[in-house]
Amino acid sequence: MGRPQEAFRILRLGHCVLRVRDLSAARSFYVDVLGFVPALEERDALYVRGIADFDLWTLGLVQADEPGLDHFALRVEYPDDLDALEELHRTLGVPVTRVEAGREPGQGEALRVRTPDGHPVEFYHHMEQVPVYDDRGRVRLPMRSTHRFRGIPPMFIDHMNLRVEDPDASLTYWRDRLRFSISEYTVRDGKTFAAWLRRRRGTHDVAVVRSTGPSLHHVAYHVGEPADVMRTADLLADAGFRAQIDFGPGRHGLSNAFFIYVRDPSGNRLEIYMGDYQRDLDAEPIRWEWEDYDEGGRLWWSPEYPARFLETTPVNPSWPL
Amino acid sequence: MGRPQEAFRILRLGHCVLRVRDLSAARSFYVDVLGFVPALEERDALYVRGIADFDLWTLGLVQADEPGLDHFALRVEYPDDLDALEELHRTLGVPVTRVEAGREPGQGEALRVRTPDGHPVEFYHHMEQVPVYDDRGRVRLPMRSTHRFRGIPPMFIDHMNLRVEDPDASLTYWRDRLRFSISEYTVRDGKTFAAWLRRRRGTHDVAVVRSTGPSLHHVAYHVGEPADVMRTADLLADAGFRAQIDFGPGRHGLSNAFFIYVRDPSGNRLEIYMGDYQRDLDAEPIRWEWEDYDEGGRLWWSPEYPARFLETTPVNPSWPL
Amino acid sequence: MGRPQEAFRILRLGHCVLRVRDLSAARSFYVDVLGFVPALEERDALYVRGIADFDLWTLGLVQADEPGLDHFALRVEYPDDLDALEELHRTLGVPVTRVEAGREPGQGEALRVRTPDGHPVEFYHHMEQVPVYDDRGRVRLPMRSTHRFRGIPPMFIDHMNLRVEDPDASLTYWRDRLRFSISEYTVRDGKTFAAWLRRRRGTHDVAVVRSTGPSLHHVAYHVGEPADVMRTADLLADAGFRAQIDFGPGRHGLSNAFFIYVRDPSGNRLEIYMGDYQRDLDAEPIRWEWEDYDEGGRLWWSPEYPARFLETTPVNPSWPL
Amino acid sequence: MGRPQEAFRILRLGHCVLRVRDLSAARSFYVDVLGFVPALEERDALYVRGIADFDLWTLGLVQADEPGLDHFALRVEYPDDLDALEELHRTLGVPVTRVEAGREPGQGEALRVRTPDGHPVEFYHHMEQVPVYDDRGRVRLPMRSTHRFRGIPPMFIDHMNLRVEDPDASLTYWRDRLRFSISEYTVRDGKTFAAWLRRRRGTHDVAVVRSTGPSLHHVAYHVGEPADVMRTADLLADAGFRAQIDFGPGRHGLSNAFFIYVRDPSGNRLEIYMGDYQRDLDAEPIRWEWEDYDEGGRLWWSPEYPARFLETTPVNPSWPL
Ligand SMILES: [Ca+2]
Ligand SMILES: [Fe+2]
Ligand SMILES: [Fe+2]
Ligand SMILES: [Fe+2]
Ligand SMILES: [Fe+2]
Repeated sequence: MGRPQEAFRILRLGHCVLRVRDLSAARSFYVDVLGFVPALEERDALYVRGIADFDLWTLGLVQADEPGLDHFALRVEYPDDLDALEELHRTLGVPVTRVEAGREPGQGEALRVRTPDGHPVEFYHHMEQVPVYDDRGRVRLPMRSTHRFRGIPPMFIDHMNLRVEDPDASLTYWRDRLRFSISEYTVRDGKTFAAWLRRRRGTHDVAVVRSTGPSLHHVAYHVGEPADVMRTADLLADAGFRAQIDFGPGRHGLSNAFFIYVRDPSGNRLEIYMGDYQRDLDAEPIRWEWEDYDEGGRLWWSPEYPARFLETTPVNPSWPL
Repeated sequence: MGRPQEAFRILRLGHCVLRVRDLSAARSFYVDVLGFVPALEERDALYVRGIADFDLWTLGLVQADEPGLDHFALRVEYPDDLDALEELHRTLGVPVTRVEAGREPGQGEALRVRTPDGHPVEFYHHMEQVPVYDDRGRVRLPMRSTHRFRGIPPMFIDHMNLRVEDPDASLTYWRDRLRFSISEYTVRDGKTFAAWLRRRRGTHDVAVVRSTGPSLHHVAYHVGEPADVMRTADLLADAGFRAQIDFGPGRHGLSNAFFIYVRDPSGNRLEIYMGDYQRDLDAEPIRWEWEDYDEGGRLWWSPEYPARFLETTPVNPSWPL
Repeated sequence: MGRPQEAFRILRLGHCVLRVRDLSAARSFYVDVLGFVPALEERDALYVRGIADFDLWTLGLVQADEPGLDHFALRVEYPDDLDALEELHRTLGVPVTRVEAGREPGQGEALRVRTPDGHPVEFYHHMEQVPVYDDRGRVRLPMRSTHRFRGIPPMFIDHMNLRVEDPDASLTYWRDRLRFSISEYTVRDGKTFAAWLRRRRGTHDVAVVRSTGPSLHHVAYHVGEPADVMRTADLLADAGFRAQIDFGPGRHGLSNAFFIYVRDPSGNRLEIYMGDYQRDLDAEPIRWEWEDYDEGGRLWWSPEYPARFLETTPVNPSWPL
Repeated sequence: MGRPQEAFRILRLGHCVLRVRDLSAARSFYVDVLGFVPALEERDALYVRGIADFDLWTLGLVQADEPGLDHFALRVEYPDDLDALEELHRTLGVPVTRVEAGREPGQGEALRVRTPDGHPVEFYHHMEQVPVYDDRGRVRLPMRSTHRFRGIPPMFIDHMNLRVEDPDASLTYWRDRLRFSISEYTVRDGKTFAAWLRRRRGTHDVAVVRSTGPSLHHVAYHVGEPADVMRTADLLADAGFRAQIDFGPGRHGLSNAFFIYVRDPSGNRLEIYMGDYQRDLDAEPIRWEWEDYDEGGRLWWSPEYPARFLETTPVNPSWPL
């Protein structure tokens, strides 16, 4: 087998924008309590990042009437990859929108689509970077300000967990067209129930899980050590946000990660996550039969999950216009 | 106020003996998976300890038809304290039994009583100690064999959580006679619902909680860092003991400790515990009103507790004979 | 053996007051970077505590021309113990000073002495306590404000490490008169080189180590988990206080604790400490021969210690006047 | 700019083979104490891995008269990439050797070269994988056997630190020909002193540092949390391998990672490593001026490094024959 010629290469999840009902409450939750680093604030939006994110921001919080997913963005290897992706989507009959540099803070030109499974996605190449030098030109890595951080703090954006109507149909897009690699997947009644997809060597940049239609289950941030998962619960309870703890801490069997799920004041679900593995993209996907997944895949251990854990938040209905 | 003359002084919880249905299963659970250090094994009993216990053993596991509490033991400051305690119990009309040195491995002479609230308790002064020197006479602390330990491992025995019919009546014994100090307590409908009692500076050696009568809720072992609480769940799930995870991990509001509750193969509940505070014995007891305790005392955060968490195991009916 | 009658009982180390050349620099170091909780500030003094200290303050920082130890204080079990201690010191020919309640913030009446080995010591019974209820009367333990803490943060004061001219002579005071228990000690050339002394069940409240005369090596604070020892170094380096890292992180053989030593901007040495063991006060002291101590007692592992580690700071020459 | 056509793509460091004088001592050190997982053993070689490595083995230990680097191996994306790499090296005038599948356990066909800067390197595509299913066909990830692991344990192979005579010359090979991305580099007297090179998103798969010629400084394994770095020192000291602790624990400024360096019984240096960052391969390399690097790059904090830290072990003189 020779090397295939690639028309584009998606590198990773870049950022996520969530809709929040109350920006001030969101700032308190994300910045003051959890310790996200504020990057910039506009009249109707707040942009934050983890302490080990090199992109200027990785989480956008925009004022809206309802919670949910405004959009998420995938970084491509070369600027010209946007042209190839535009061509691909035209071939698929998917409308595309090009937006100019600066439409979002620090971002270069971008391509926006609603994916065939209904999700608001943006492709981009350029994003402004966090400085790595101090005022005197000496190296100062972004995460080396522990004396200024607060909260957990979160390290970097990790993945999106999406709900879709038909995961097998989703895979024809995510795996076959965008060339995401499946790390693990679950089969129920002969059909794919869920698949964890990645362009990095971790377990996933994006997961697609069967539900009644497109919606967002959660966006996840990576933390530095297992104890940070319990620290998240301490911080929320101490700060009066105990009701925002949705589920956890626990460990997933599928992906092997420690987790805790929390809800922001508008109801968006955030996962604080740590401990998945690194495995080559061309490794054989790991297959879970339903019973096996149901018993030890979703939760390797941890209490029974509550019914509220199945709730999701809607996706932006007007994207990409 | 002058100094009161003391007739005896209880120092701390010394050990606990649990009844198990299957010694071999108990060995696998406590020693092979959780990493308790085996001290000695007899035909019908196994004696183990944590890696930072200096007593030869702190947990006894004895063959029995039913699970539950055989007895637990409190260490007194001086050998003669046993005489004073014998006198005290005679005054209270509580039958006492003296047992000779060696009745339990490594233990000196002891005094056995069934407490007024129905619990099987032993008072003792002497217990054989773990060596602190190696074969060549050089100092070697017991916990400095990390290359040989397995499991969590547990560090030292911490406390007993007892169920009693009437906590206010229990306090006339534990607080007024044995001079335990209350660290925290809960009031429900004008009566004490539960009290945490100690002779060390931590939050408790013994807790008494209202129920239908004397039974054991759990014995607790202290671990070295918060992540060990999650490691306990990993170990049990990895070893095929997932069903033995009872509840947790979480954090208590009352006592401030991280916890996970697990059940041994016979059904005895063990708490893996870390993070309570040190406070002087003469400090004012901390009082929780019921609603406050119910909301943030039992659990500062963590999921709703399952009904099985209210189950207890019986106490030895034939003690102290 | 019957129970001895005690004339007094020392419970623990209570607080330490250090002399600093620059209060503002001390505030920055202790409060802003390391995360000590400020309790109150006066014109010439700053009083702080750890997050799990229940005393209003445990570390005093007072303006002075030179760094060093102003004094440290030991808490006694009953107010009348001060009378017995006054009597004891008169018997020993040691001048005593009684100071009224309020001489130090929140403190009751106290007894001040210069110990026979030259150290400035205060005995007291009463100290104002940190509130354990919130404004609405609900329980709120002091350490449950993780969303407000910064720095490591330190948990509670642990011990004083003193230099003395003749440790054997010191023991006739600390062990024989004050009834401190030796946890471990080192013998060099047939004489005691150093001894670790305690009234709590940990390894030490006070250590006395041979040197040319009375001086202070360090005061130690306990932290919550081993990683906090490394976090201390991160915080100092990140905040521009890298030169204040004196030695470590490492592990002691004697006491078994993880440590890092840092210097405040005036040169006072602080140990950040975690992991020693709990052992009964009447347990046989553990004896280290010099060669054994020199090889594995001071440092179980960690790099060779630098010459500066032998430096000490002076004790208050005008105490107790 | 359009997308460049790639003739080959190196994915990551795959494995490293070290020469050891005593296989039995190596087994004791790597397997019994540090907790590497033994994969297979031959008469003259032992093959081990970390608990989160998916390759059957990532560290080979082969019997030899002298310690040092036998070779290390880089995984390529496609089998045909070996042809393109063979062609590249012929162009460079570098002799190549093709070895058949099975020359090393579990490995497919490979290409072996001595790099222009003198290092023994192997390129390969296929390596046998650790099973991810149990005997009954249920998913069982390799790292989910905590009840069987011992030691730290190490998680996965991370990087090689090489010494070379002229880093600028090395970069014409590693960066310009093999297309490694520089994460950070140091400049001294106008020339590159050292460069950290990667094909994964971490800080390095390979580092080249100026010295008198080709030699090995260390191979590094990644661990799960910061405390594991200190645990490494505890394990070695407890097991009687205290003299094998070379330097650390500490934190690097360049790469941001926690580290400890240890020596195996033959003198090969191993780094236990955790905490570097993820950054895109096309991000601007971070440049350290010498003084800056010397002060805060090599060590963000931690004690002065000992002279022995500059020692290296030789590279296999007879590779690739
Ligand atoms: Ca930890
Ligand atoms: Fe997730
Ligand atoms: Fe408990
Ligand atoms: Fe100390
Ligand atoms: Fe390295």
